[in-house]
Amino acid sequence: MADRIGFIGLGIMGSGMAMNVLRAGFPLTVWNRTPAKATPLAAAGAAVANTPAELAAASDIVVICISDTADVEAVILGPQGVIEGARPGSLVIDMSTISPAATRQMASALAERGVAMLDAPVSGGSEGAARGTLSIMVGGEATAVQRAAPLLQTMGQRITHVGPHGAGQTVKLVNQVMVVGNCLAMAEGLLLAQAGGVDLDKALEAVSGGAAGSWMLSNRGPQILARDWRPGFTIALQQKDLRLVLEAADQQGAPLPGTALIFQLYRTLEARGLSGDGNHALIKALEALSGIEIAAP
Amino acid sequence: MADRIGFIGLGIMGSGMAMNVLRAGFPLTVWNRTPAKATPLAAAGAAVANTPAELAAASDIVVICISDTADVEAVILGPQGVIEGARPGSLVIDMSTISPAATRQMASALAERGVAMLDAPVSGGSEGAARGTLSIMVGGEATAVQRAAPLLQTMGQRITHVGPHGAGQTVKLVNQVMVVGNCLAMAEGLLLAQAGGVDLDKALEAVSGGAAGSWMLSNRGPQILARDWRPGFTIALQQKDLRLVLEAADQQGAPLPGTALIFQLYRTLEARGLSGDGNHALIKALEALSGIEIAAP
Repeated sequence: MADRIGFIGLGIMGSGMAMNVLRAGFPLTVWNRTPAKATPLAAAGAAVANTPAELAAASDIVVICISDTADVEAVILGPQGVIEGARPGSLVIDMSTISPAATRQMASALAERGVAMLDAPVSGGSEGAARGTLSIMVGGEATAVQRAAPLLQTMGQRITHVGPHGAGQTVKLVNQVMVVGNCLAMAEGLLLAQAGGVDLDKALEAVSGGAAGSWMLSNRGPQILARDWRPGFTIALQQKDLRLVLEAADQQGAPLPGTALIFQLYRTLEARGLSGDGNHALIKALEALSGIEIAAP
Repeated sequence: MADRIGFIGLGIMGSGMAMNVLRAGFPLTVWNRTPAKATPLAAAGAAVANTPAELAAASDIVVICISDTADVEAVILGPQGVIEGARPGSLVIDMSTISPAATRQMASALAERGVAMLDAPVSGGSEGAARGTLSIMVGGEATAVQRAAPLLQTMGQRITHVGPHGAGQTVKLVNQVMVVGNCLAMAEGLLLAQAGGVDLDKALEAVSGGAAGSWMLSNRGPQILARDWRPGFTIALQQKDLRLVLEAADQQGAPLPGTALIFQLYRTLEARGLSGDGNHALIKALEALSGIEIAAP
Protein backbone atom coordinates (compact mmCIF):
# COMPACT_ATOMS: atom_id res chain seq x y z
CA MET A 1 0.00 0.00 0.00
CA ALA A 2 1.29 3.47 -0.86
CA ASP A 3 2.73 5.61 1.92
CA ARG A 4 0.29 8.20 3.23
CA ILE A 5 1.83 11.63 2.53
CA GLY A 6 1.46 14.86 4.48
CA PHE A 7 2.48 18.08 2.70
CA ILE A 8 3.20 21.30 4.60
CA GLY A 9 3.67 24.55 2.65
CA LEU A 10 1.51 25.27 -0.37
CA GLY A 11 3.26 28.33 -1.74
CA ILE A 12 4.49 28.97 -5.27
CA MET A 13 6.67 25.83 -5.15
CA GLY A 14 4.78 23.54 -2.77
CA SER A 15 1.38 23.85 -4.45
CA GLY A 16 2.69 22.41 -7.72
CA MET A 17 4.74 19.74 -5.96
CA ALA A 18 1.81 18.61 -3.78
CA MET A 19 -0.44 18.42 -6.82
CA ASN A 20 2.04 16.09 -8.52
CA VAL A 21 2.11 13.86 -5.42
CA LEU A 22 -1.68 13.68 -5.44
CA ARG A 23 -1.86 12.97 -9.19
CA ALA A 24 0.58 10.11 -8.75
CA GLY A 25 -1.96 8.40 -6.51
CA PHE A 26 -0.52 8.93 -3.03
CA PRO A 27 -3.09 9.50 -0.27
CA LEU A 28 -2.45 13.15 0.66
CA THR A 29 -3.10 15.38 3.65
CA VAL A 30 -2.08 19.06 3.45
CA TRP A 31 -1.56 21.94 5.85
CA ASN A 32 -0.70 25.58 5.17
CA ARG A 33 -0.34 28.54 7.53
CA THR A 34 -2.78 30.46 5.32
CA PRO A 35 -5.59 27.89 5.02
CA ALA A 36 -7.10 29.35 1.82
CA LYS A 37 -4.13 28.06 -0.16
CA ALA A 38 -5.24 24.50 0.54
CA THR A 39 -8.50 24.95 -1.37
CA PRO A 40 -7.34 23.79 -4.83
CA LEU A 41 -5.73 20.65 -3.35
CA ALA A 42 -8.79 19.89 -1.24
CA ALA A 43 -10.90 20.23 -4.39
CA ALA A 44 -8.56 17.73 -6.09
CA GLY A 45 -9.02 15.18 -3.31
CA ALA A 46 -6.54 15.99 -0.53
CA ALA A 47 -7.52 15.95 3.15
CA VAL A 48 -6.80 19.15 5.10
CA ALA A 49 -5.30 18.99 8.61
CA ASN A 50 -5.77 21.63 11.31
CA THR A 51 -2.19 21.51 12.63
CA PRO A 52 1.19 20.08 11.60
CA ALA A 53 0.85 17.60 14.50
CA GLU A 54 -2.50 16.38 13.20
CA LEU A 55 -1.07 16.10 9.69
CA ALA A 56 1.90 14.08 10.97
CA ALA A 57 -0.36 11.72 12.89
CA ALA A 58 -2.21 10.93 9.65
CA SER A 59 0.94 10.43 7.53
CA ASP A 60 3.79 7.96 6.94
CA ILE A 61 5.92 10.61 5.23
CA VAL A 62 5.74 14.35 5.93
CA VAL A 63 7.04 16.75 3.26
CA ILE A 64 7.84 20.35 4.18
CA CYS A 65 8.37 23.14 1.63
CA ILE A 66 8.38 26.58 3.24
CA SER A 67 10.49 29.73 3.27
CA ASP A 68 13.14 29.86 5.94
CA THR A 69 14.95 28.17 8.79
CA ALA A 70 12.84 29.60 11.63
CA ASP A 71 9.59 28.58 9.95
CA VAL A 72 10.82 25.02 9.39
CA GLU A 73 11.92 24.80 13.03
CA ALA A 74 8.52 26.06 14.22
CA VAL A 75 6.60 23.62 12.02
CA ILE A 76 8.70 20.62 13.10
CA LEU A 77 9.62 21.35 16.73
CA GLY A 78 7.16 24.05 17.85
CA PRO A 79 3.79 23.70 19.63
CA GLN A 80 1.44 21.46 17.65
CA GLY A 81 4.45 20.73 15.44
CA VAL A 82 5.22 17.63 13.39
CA ILE A 83 7.23 16.14 16.25
CA GLU A 84 4.10 15.99 18.44
CA GLY A 85 2.20 13.86 15.93
CA ALA A 86 4.82 11.81 14.11
CA ARG A 87 5.00 8.13 15.05
CA PRO A 88 8.30 6.20 15.32
CA GLY A 89 9.20 4.84 11.91
CA SER A 90 7.83 7.80 10.00
CA LEU A 91 9.93 10.05 7.76
CA VAL A 92 10.18 13.85 7.43
CA ILE A 93 11.51 15.29 4.16
CA ASP A 94 12.38 18.99 4.25
CA MET A 95 12.45 20.40 0.73
CA SER A 96 12.89 24.01 1.85
CA THR A 97 16.25 25.78 1.41
CA ILE A 98 17.48 26.40 4.95
CA SER A 99 20.57 26.24 7.15
CA PRO A 100 22.60 22.98 6.93
CA ALA A 101 23.49 23.28 10.65
CA ALA A 102 19.85 23.73 11.72
CA THR A 103 18.99 20.78 9.50
CA ARG A 104 21.43 18.54 11.37
CA GLN A 105 19.98 19.67 14.72
CA MET A 106 16.41 18.91 13.63
CA ALA A 107 17.46 15.52 12.26
CA SER A 108 18.91 14.71 15.71
CA ALA A 109 15.78 15.86 17.55
CA LEU A 110 13.56 13.75 15.29
CA ALA A 111 15.88 10.73 15.54
CA GLU A 112 15.39 10.75 19.33
CA ARG A 113 11.69 10.07 18.64
CA GLY A 114 12.53 7.37 16.09
CA VAL A 115 11.60 9.63 13.17
CA ALA A 116 13.93 9.74 10.15
CA MET A 117 14.68 12.97 8.25
CA LEU A 118 16.00 13.92 4.84
CA ASP A 119 16.96 17.36 3.59
CA ALA A 120 15.97 17.59 -0.06
CA PRO A 121 16.09 21.15 -1.39
CA VAL A 122 15.26 21.69 -5.03
CA SER A 123 16.21 23.81 -7.99
CA GLY A 124 14.17 24.41 -11.10
CA GLY A 125 11.71 27.11 -10.08
CA SER A 126 7.92 27.16 -9.97
CA GLU A 127 7.79 25.88 -13.54
CA GLY A 128 9.84 22.82 -12.57
CA ALA A 129 7.65 22.33 -9.50
CA ALA A 130 4.47 22.37 -11.59
CA ARG A 131 5.92 20.04 -14.23
CA GLY A 132 7.62 17.63 -11.85
CA THR A 133 11.03 18.31 -13.40
CA LEU A 134 12.90 19.66 -10.36
CA SER A 135 16.48 18.80 -9.49
CA ILE A 136 16.51 17.45 -5.92
CA MET A 137 19.68 17.35 -3.78
CA VAL A 138 19.22 14.87 -0.94
CA GLY A 139 21.08 14.56 2.35
CA GLY A 140 20.50 11.82 4.95
CA GLU A 141 20.71 8.06 5.36
CA ALA A 142 20.60 5.81 2.32
CA THR A 143 17.69 3.68 3.64
CA ALA A 144 15.55 6.79 4.03
CA VAL A 145 16.55 7.95 0.54
CA GLN A 146 15.43 4.60 -0.89
CA ARG A 147 12.14 4.82 0.95
CA ALA A 148 11.58 8.37 -0.33
CA ALA A 149 12.52 7.66 -3.94
CA PRO A 150 9.05 6.83 -5.34
CA LEU A 151 7.67 9.99 -3.75
CA LEU A 152 10.55 12.24 -4.87
CA GLN A 153 10.24 10.91 -8.41
CA THR A 154 6.74 12.40 -8.62
CA MET A 155 8.28 15.84 -8.05
CA GLY A 156 11.68 15.78 -9.72
CA GLN A 157 13.79 14.33 -12.51
CA ARG A 158 17.35 14.56 -11.28
CA ILE A 159 17.50 13.18 -7.74
CA THR A 160 21.01 12.99 -6.28
CA HIS A 161 21.93 11.60 -2.86
CA VAL A 162 24.87 13.84 -2.01
CA GLY A 163 25.76 12.83 1.58
CA PRO A 164 24.60 12.77 5.21
CA HIS A 165 22.12 15.08 6.99
CA GLY A 166 22.65 18.67 5.82
CA ALA A 167 24.51 17.68 2.64
CA GLY A 168 21.48 18.38 0.46
CA GLN A 169 21.30 21.89 1.90
CA THR A 170 25.04 22.35 1.47
CA VAL A 171 24.88 21.38 -2.20
CA LYS A 172 21.93 23.73 -2.73
CA LEU A 173 24.07 26.51 -1.27
CA VAL A 174 26.98 25.46 -3.52
CA ASN A 175 24.55 25.76 -6.43
CA GLN A 176 23.60 29.29 -5.35
CA VAL A 177 27.26 30.36 -5.01
CA MET A 178 27.85 29.33 -8.60
CA VAL A 179 24.63 30.92 -9.85
CA VAL A 180 25.46 34.35 -8.44
CA GLY A 181 29.14 34.09 -9.38
CA ASN A 182 28.20 33.40 -12.98
CA CYS A 183 25.75 36.31 -12.72
CA LEU A 184 28.44 38.78 -11.65
CA ALA A 185 30.74 37.48 -14.40
CA MET A 186 27.99 38.18 -16.93
CA ALA A 187 27.24 41.60 -15.46
CA GLU A 188 30.88 42.77 -15.45
CA GLY A 189 31.45 41.45 -18.96
CA LEU A 190 28.37 43.18 -20.38
CA LEU A 191 29.23 46.43 -18.57
CA LEU A 192 32.71 46.37 -20.13
CA ALA A 193 31.16 45.67 -23.53
CA GLN A 194 28.81 48.64 -23.13
CA ALA A 195 31.63 50.89 -21.93
CA GLY A 196 33.76 49.81 -24.89
CA GLY A 197 31.05 50.71 -27.37
CA VAL A 198 30.61 47.30 -28.97
CA ASP A 199 27.36 45.86 -30.32
CA LEU A 200 26.01 43.96 -27.32
CA ASP A 201 23.99 41.45 -29.33
CA LYS A 202 27.04 40.60 -31.42
CA ALA A 203 29.24 40.41 -28.33
CA LEU A 204 26.82 37.99 -26.67
CA GLU A 205 26.72 35.91 -29.84
CA ALA A 206 30.52 35.88 -30.05
CA VAL A 207 31.22 34.73 -26.48
CA SER A 208 28.28 32.66 -25.26
CA GLY A 209 29.18 29.46 -27.10
CA GLY A 210 32.76 29.21 -25.82
CA ALA A 211 34.76 29.15 -22.61
CA ALA A 212 32.76 32.14 -21.28
CA GLY A 213 29.47 30.31 -21.68
CA SER A 214 27.04 29.58 -18.86
CA TRP A 215 23.37 28.81 -18.28
CA MET A 216 23.14 32.31 -16.79
CA LEU A 217 24.61 34.01 -19.87
CA SER A 218 22.46 32.06 -22.33
CA ASN A 219 19.23 32.53 -20.37
CA ARG A 220 19.58 35.90 -18.65
CA GLY A 221 22.05 37.70 -20.98
CA PRO A 222 19.35 38.37 -23.59
CA GLN A 223 17.03 39.57 -20.81
CA ILE A 224 19.64 42.13 -19.70
CA LEU A 225 20.07 43.39 -23.27
CA ALA A 226 16.28 43.81 -23.42
CA ARG A 227 16.30 45.48 -19.96
CA ASP A 228 13.72 42.88 -18.94
CA TRP A 229 14.01 42.49 -15.19
CA ARG A 230 11.16 39.99 -14.67
CA PRO A 231 12.31 37.37 -12.20
CA GLY A 232 13.15 33.79 -12.86
CA PHE A 233 14.38 34.01 -9.26
CA THR A 234 13.94 37.22 -7.26
CA ILE A 235 16.70 39.20 -5.56
CA ALA A 236 14.76 38.77 -2.28
CA LEU A 237 15.01 34.98 -2.48
CA GLN A 238 18.58 35.13 -3.77
CA GLN A 239 19.61 37.20 -0.76
CA LYS A 240 17.79 34.86 1.63
CA ASP A 241 19.88 32.03 0.18
CA LEU A 242 23.13 34.06 0.22
CA ARG A 243 22.59 34.80 3.91
CA LEU A 244 22.49 31.03 4.44
CA VAL A 245 25.59 30.62 2.26
CA LEU A 246 27.62 33.19 4.16
CA GLU A 247 26.47 31.84 7.53
CA ALA A 248 27.41 28.26 6.58
CA ALA A 249 30.71 29.35 5.05
CA ASP A 250 31.57 31.29 8.21
CA GLN A 251 30.73 28.32 10.42
CA GLN A 252 32.90 26.05 8.28
CA GLY A 253 35.84 28.41 7.82
CA ALA A 254 35.43 28.74 4.06
CA PRO A 255 36.35 32.19 2.69
CA LEU A 256 34.06 33.24 -0.18
CA PRO A 257 35.31 36.69 -1.16
CA GLY A 258 33.41 36.83 -4.45
CA THR A 259 30.12 35.71 -2.94
CA ALA A 260 30.51 38.23 -0.11
CA LEU A 261 31.02 41.00 -2.66
CA ILE A 262 27.95 39.90 -4.61
CA PHE A 263 25.86 39.88 -1.43
CA GLN A 264 26.85 43.50 -0.80
CA LEU A 265 26.03 44.50 -4.38
CA TYR A 266 22.59 42.89 -4.13
CA ARG A 267 22.20 44.66 -0.77
CA THR A 268 22.33 48.01 -2.59
CA LEU A 269 19.49 46.85 -4.83
CA GLU A 270 17.41 45.72 -1.83
CA ALA A 271 17.99 49.17 -0.32
CA ARG A 272 16.66 50.73 -3.52
CA GLY A 273 13.47 48.68 -3.39
CA LEU A 274 14.41 46.34 -6.24
CA SER A 275 14.00 43.05 -4.32
CA GLY A 276 11.32 41.89 -6.73
CA ASP A 277 13.60 42.10 -9.77
CA GLY A 278 15.21 38.97 -11.12
CA ASN A 279 18.71 38.11 -9.88
CA HIS A 280 20.17 39.19 -13.24
CA ALA A 281 19.39 42.79 -12.21
CA LEU A 282 22.73 42.57 -10.36
CA ILE A 283 24.10 44.60 -13.28
CA LYS A 284 22.02 47.56 -12.02
CA ALA A 285 24.42 47.82 -9.07
CA LEU A 286 27.37 48.22 -11.47
CA GLU A 287 25.37 50.70 -13.55
CA ALA A 288 24.71 52.81 -10.45
CA LEU A 289 28.40 52.69 -9.48
CA SER A 290 29.52 53.93 -12.88
CA GLY A 291 26.75 55.84 -14.62
CA ILE A 292 27.27 53.45 -17.53
CA GLU A 293 23.96 51.90 -18.57
CA ILE A 294 23.25 48.98 -20.85
CA ALA A 295 21.54 50.67 -23.80
CA ALA A 296 17.85 49.93 -24.20
CA PRO A 297 17.16 47.88 -27.32
CA MET B 1 43.85 35.59 -57.83
CA ALA B 2 44.13 34.83 -54.12
CA ASP B 3 45.50 37.54 -51.86
CA ARG B 4 49.16 37.06 -50.94
CA ILE B 5 49.34 36.59 -47.17
CA GLY B 6 52.12 37.54 -44.76
CA PHE B 7 52.05 35.93 -41.33
CA ILE B 8 53.99 37.34 -38.36
CA GLY B 9 54.21 35.32 -35.14
CA LEU B 10 54.65 31.55 -35.30
CA GLY B 11 54.14 30.64 -31.66
CA ILE B 12 51.82 28.06 -30.17
CA MET B 13 48.79 29.74 -31.80
CA GLY B 14 50.27 31.31 -34.93
CA SER B 15 52.05 28.21 -36.21
CA GLY B 16 48.79 26.26 -36.49
CA MET B 17 46.90 29.21 -37.93
CA ALA B 18 49.57 29.91 -40.57
CA MET B 19 49.63 26.25 -41.56
CA ASN B 20 45.87 26.35 -42.16
CA VAL B 21 46.28 29.45 -44.35
CA LEU B 22 48.95 27.69 -46.38
CA ARG B 23 46.90 24.48 -46.73
CA ALA B 24 43.96 26.52 -48.03
CA GLY B 25 46.12 27.55 -50.97
CA PHE B 26 47.03 31.15 -50.13
CA PRO B 27 50.55 32.23 -51.18
CA LEU B 28 52.27 32.70 -47.81
CA THR B 29 55.28 34.59 -46.49
CA VAL B 30 56.17 34.26 -42.80
CA TRP B 31 58.35 36.08 -40.27
CA ASN B 32 59.13 35.25 -36.66
CA ARG B 33 61.43 36.95 -34.15
CA THR B 34 63.05 33.55 -33.50
CA PRO B 35 63.71 32.43 -37.09
CA ALA B 36 63.91 28.69 -36.29
CA LYS B 37 60.17 28.59 -35.71
CA ALA B 38 59.64 29.32 -39.42
CA THR B 39 61.29 26.06 -40.46
CA PRO B 40 58.18 23.80 -40.57
CA LEU B 41 56.25 26.40 -42.59
CA ALA B 42 59.17 26.92 -44.99
CA ALA B 43 59.30 23.15 -45.46
CA ALA B 44 55.58 23.21 -46.27
CA GLY B 45 56.06 25.86 -48.95
CA ALA B 46 56.01 29.27 -47.27
CA ALA B 47 58.51 31.99 -48.15
CA VAL B 48 60.47 33.46 -45.22
CA ALA B 49 61.04 37.23 -44.96
CA ASN B 50 63.95 38.89 -43.17
CA THR B 51 61.96 41.72 -41.63
CA PRO B 52 58.29 42.66 -41.07
CA ALA B 53 58.76 45.45 -43.66
CA GLU B 54 60.00 42.97 -46.26
CA LEU B 55 57.09 40.64 -45.45
CA ALA B 56 54.60 43.50 -45.82
CA ALA B 57 56.07 44.50 -49.19
CA ALA B 58 55.44 40.96 -50.47
CA SER B 59 51.86 40.69 -49.12
CA ASP B 60 48.35 41.97 -49.77
CA ILE B 61 47.20 41.03 -46.26
CA VAL B 62 49.49 40.91 -43.22
CA VAL B 63 48.36 38.77 -40.26
CA ILE B 64 49.94 39.31 -36.82
CA CYS B 65 49.63 36.87 -33.93
CA ILE B 66 52.04 37.67 -31.09
CA SER B 67 52.04 38.15 -27.35
CA ASP B 68 51.48 41.66 -26.18
CA THR B 69 50.76 45.27 -27.00
CA ALA B 70 54.37 46.50 -27.09
CA ASP B 71 55.41 43.69 -29.43
CA VAL B 72 52.56 44.40 -31.83
CA GLU B 73 53.44 48.11 -31.82
CA ALA B 74 57.09 47.32 -32.55
CA VAL B 75 56.24 44.95 -35.38
CA ILE B 76 53.82 47.39 -37.02
CA LEU B 77 55.28 50.83 -36.28
CA GLY B 78 58.92 50.20 -35.29
CA PRO B 79 62.09 50.19 -37.43
CA GLN B 80 61.73 47.77 -40.35
CA GLY B 81 58.11 47.40 -39.28
CA VAL B 82 55.07 46.54 -41.36
CA ILE B 83 54.28 50.21 -41.92
CA GLU B 84 57.55 50.64 -43.82
CA GLY B 85 56.72 47.96 -46.36
CA ALA B 86 52.93 47.99 -46.64
CA ARG B 87 51.49 49.52 -49.80
CA PRO B 88 48.31 51.65 -49.86
CA GLY B 89 45.33 49.35 -50.26
CA SER B 90 46.82 46.56 -48.20
CA LEU B 91 45.27 45.19 -44.98
CA VAL B 92 46.75 44.37 -41.57
CA ILE B 93 44.86 41.89 -39.36
CA ASP B 94 46.03 41.75 -35.75
CA MET B 95 44.91 38.47 -34.16
CA SER B 96 46.86 39.02 -30.94
CA THR B 97 45.05 39.91 -27.71
CA ILE B 98 46.18 43.45 -26.89
CA SER B 99 44.94 46.84 -25.71
CA PRO B 100 41.80 48.17 -27.49
CA ALA B 101 43.11 51.74 -27.14
CA ALA B 102 46.50 50.89 -28.66
CA THR B 103 44.63 49.08 -31.43
CA ARG B 104 42.72 52.23 -32.32
CA GLN B 105 45.96 54.25 -32.39
CA MET B 106 47.65 51.76 -34.70
CA ALA B 107 44.62 51.68 -36.98
CA SER B 108 44.86 55.48 -37.27
CA ALA B 109 48.59 55.40 -38.02
CA LEU B 110 48.07 52.77 -40.72
CA ALA B 111 45.07 54.61 -42.18
CA GLU B 112 47.30 57.66 -42.78
CA ARG B 113 49.32 55.46 -45.16
CA GLY B 114 46.18 54.11 -46.82
CA VAL B 115 46.51 50.74 -45.05
CA ALA B 116 43.38 49.20 -43.49
CA MET B 117 43.45 47.35 -40.18
CA LEU B 118 41.26 44.84 -38.37
CA ASP B 119 41.59 43.61 -34.82
CA ALA B 120 40.62 39.95 -34.77
CA PRO B 121 41.57 38.22 -31.53
CA VAL B 122 40.64 34.58 -31.12
CA SER B 123 39.51 32.09 -28.53
CA GLY B 124 39.74 28.34 -28.71
CA GLY B 125 43.33 27.61 -27.70
CA SER B 126 46.16 25.92 -29.56
CA GLU B 127 43.88 23.00 -30.40
CA GLY B 128 41.41 25.33 -32.12
CA ALA B 129 44.30 27.05 -33.92
CA ALA B 130 45.59 23.74 -35.26
CA ARG B 131 42.13 22.53 -36.32
CA GLY B 132 40.91 25.82 -37.76
CA THR B 133 37.99 25.95 -35.33
CA LEU B 134 38.77 29.22 -33.53
CA SER B 135 36.17 31.80 -32.57
CA ILE B 136 37.27 35.14 -34.05
CA MET B 137 35.98 38.49 -32.77
CA VAL B 138 36.51 41.17 -35.42
CA GLY B 139 36.65 44.96 -35.06
CA GLY B 140 37.03 47.41 -37.95
CA GLU B 141 35.29 48.52 -41.14
CA ALA B 142 32.81 46.24 -42.84
CA THR B 143 34.56 46.39 -46.23
CA ALA B 144 37.79 45.17 -44.66
CA VAL B 145 35.90 42.40 -42.84
CA GLN B 146 34.42 41.23 -46.13
CA ARG B 147 37.83 41.26 -47.75
CA ALA B 148 39.30 39.25 -44.84
CA ALA B 149 36.49 36.69 -44.66
CA PRO B 150 37.93 34.00 -46.99
CA LEU B 151 41.23 34.17 -45.10
CA LEU B 152 39.66 34.17 -41.61
CA GLN B 153 37.51 31.18 -42.59
CA THR B 154 40.67 29.11 -43.02
CA MET B 155 41.45 29.72 -39.33
CA GLY B 156 38.10 29.88 -37.53
CA GLN B 157 34.52 28.70 -37.47
CA ARG B 158 32.62 31.41 -35.62
CA ILE B 159 33.63 34.77 -37.08
CA THR B 160 31.70 37.72 -35.63
CA HIS B 161 32.05 41.36 -36.69
CA VAL B 162 31.39 43.09 -33.38
CA GLY B 163 32.03 46.78 -34.14
CA PRO B 164 34.63 49.39 -35.12
CA HIS B 165 38.41 49.36 -34.53
CA GLY B 166 39.18 47.98 -31.07
CA ALA B 167 35.78 46.27 -30.69
CA GLY B 168 37.25 42.84 -31.40
CA GLN B 169 39.77 43.38 -28.62
CA THR B 170 37.05 44.68 -26.31
CA VAL B 171 34.89 41.60 -26.88
CA LYS B 172 37.89 39.36 -26.28
CA LEU B 173 38.38 41.12 -22.95
CA VAL B 174 34.65 40.71 -22.20
CA ASN B 175 35.13 37.00 -22.87
CA GLN B 176 38.02 36.87 -20.40
CA VAL B 177 36.03 38.69 -17.70
CA MET B 178 33.33 36.04 -17.96
CA VAL B 179 35.82 33.16 -18.07
CA VAL B 180 37.53 34.17 -14.82
CA GLY B 181 34.25 35.13 -13.14
CA ASN B 182 32.83 31.69 -13.87
CA CYS B 183 36.11 30.25 -12.60
CA LEU B 184 35.84 32.01 -9.22
CA ALA B 185 32.18 30.95 -8.96
CA MET B 186 33.29 27.35 -9.48
CA ALA B 187 36.16 27.64 -7.03
CA GLU B 188 34.06 29.16 -4.23
CA GLY B 189 31.28 26.63 -4.77
CA LEU B 190 33.65 23.66 -4.66
CA LEU B 191 35.44 25.05 -1.59
CA LEU B 192 32.09 25.36 0.22
CA ALA B 193 31.21 21.82 -0.83
CA GLN B 194 34.53 20.53 0.54
CA ALA B 195 34.10 22.49 3.78
CA GLY B 196 30.58 21.14 4.16
CA GLY B 197 31.74 17.55 3.83
CA VAL B 198 29.66 16.56 0.82
CA ASP B 199 30.69 14.12 -1.90
CA LEU B 200 32.29 16.41 -4.49
CA ASP B 201 31.59 14.16 -7.47
CA LYS B 202 27.92 13.94 -6.51
CA ALA B 203 27.74 17.69 -5.87
CA LEU B 204 29.21 18.41 -9.31
CA GLU B 205 26.73 15.98 -10.86
CA ALA B 206 23.83 17.60 -8.99
CA VAL B 207 24.55 21.21 -9.99
CA SER B 208 26.34 21.25 -13.34
CA GLY B 209 23.26 20.63 -15.49
CA GLY B 210 21.17 23.46 -14.05
CA ALA B 211 21.28 27.20 -13.43
CA ALA B 212 24.79 26.88 -11.95
CA GLY B 213 26.13 25.33 -15.13
CA SER B 214 28.98 26.74 -17.20
CA TRP B 215 31.59 25.65 -19.72
CA MET B 216 34.13 26.22 -16.96
CA LEU B 217 32.32 23.94 -14.49
CA SER B 218 31.78 21.15 -17.00
CA ASN B 219 35.32 21.23 -18.37
CA ARG B 220 37.49 22.30 -15.43
CA GLY B 221 35.40 21.13 -12.44
CA PRO B 222 36.37 17.48 -12.97
CA GLN B 223 40.02 18.58 -13.34
CA ILE B 224 39.88 20.32 -9.95
CA LEU B 225 38.39 17.23 -8.31
CA ALA B 226 41.28 15.23 -9.80
CA ARG B 227 43.75 17.95 -8.67
CA ASP B 228 44.92 18.06 -12.29
CA TRP B 229 46.39 21.51 -12.84
CA ARG B 230 47.54 21.06 -16.44
CA PRO B 231 46.69 24.20 -18.36
CA GLY B 232 44.06 24.68 -21.01
CA PHE B 233 45.05 28.33 -20.52
CA THR B 234 47.87 29.28 -18.16
CA ILE B 235 47.63 31.69 -15.25
CA ALA B 236 50.46 33.68 -16.87
CA LEU B 237 48.40 34.29 -20.01
CA GLN B 238 45.22 34.84 -18.01
CA GLN B 239 46.93 37.56 -15.99
CA LYS B 240 48.34 39.19 -19.12
CA ASP B 241 44.77 39.43 -20.40
CA LEU B 242 43.37 40.62 -17.04
CA ARG B 243 45.92 43.43 -17.02
CA LEU B 244 44.48 44.52 -20.37
CA VAL B 245 40.95 44.15 -18.98
CA LEU B 246 41.61 46.30 -15.92
CA GLU B 247 43.48 48.91 -17.99
CA ALA B 248 40.64 49.17 -20.52
CA ALA B 249 37.98 49.20 -17.79
CA ASP B 250 39.83 52.00 -15.99
CA GLN B 251 40.13 54.04 -19.19
CA GLN B 252 36.42 53.62 -19.87
CA GLY B 253 35.17 54.18 -16.32
CA ALA B 254 33.76 50.67 -15.90
CA PRO B 255 34.05 49.31 -12.33
CA LEU B 256 34.81 45.56 -12.31
CA PRO B 257 35.03 44.68 -8.60
CA GLY B 258 34.86 40.92 -9.13
CA THR B 259 37.49 40.88 -11.86
CA ALA B 260 39.79 43.06 -9.75
CA LEU B 261 39.45 40.61 -6.86
CA ILE B 262 40.22 37.67 -9.14
CA PHE B 263 43.31 39.43 -10.51
CA GLN B 264 44.60 39.82 -6.95
CA LEU B 265 43.91 36.16 -6.15
CA TYR B 266 45.79 35.05 -9.27
CA ARG B 267 48.55 37.45 -8.25
CA THR B 268 49.14 35.36 -5.12
CA LEU B 269 49.56 32.29 -7.31
CA GLU B 270 52.02 34.10 -9.59
CA ALA B 271 53.97 35.07 -6.47
CA ARG B 272 54.09 31.40 -5.48
CA GLY B 273 55.53 30.38 -8.84
CA LEU B 274 52.33 28.77 -10.14
CA SER B 275 52.03 30.82 -13.36
CA GLY B 276 52.25 27.69 -15.47
CA ASP B 277 49.20 26.09 -13.88
CA GLY B 278 45.86 26.23 -15.66
CA ASN B 279 43.53 29.10 -14.77
CA HIS B 280 41.30 26.69 -12.82
CA ALA B 281 44.09 26.56 -10.19
CA LEU B 282 42.45 29.78 -8.90
CA ILE B 283 40.97 27.54 -6.21
CA LYS B 284 44.50 27.13 -4.78
CA ALA B 285 44.32 30.77 -3.64
CA LEU B 286 41.16 29.99 -1.62
CA GLU B 287 42.76 26.82 -0.27
CA ALA B 288 45.76 28.81 0.94
CA LEU B 289 43.49 31.41 2.58
CA SER B 290 41.57 28.78 4.52
CA GLY B 291 43.63 25.64 4.94
CA ILE B 292 40.68 23.78 3.40
CA GLU B 293 41.86 21.61 0.56
CA ILE B 294 39.87 19.83 -2.12
CA ALA B 295 40.46 16.18 -1.24
CA ALA B 296 42.64 14.24 -3.65
CA PRO B 297 40.65 11.53 -5.46
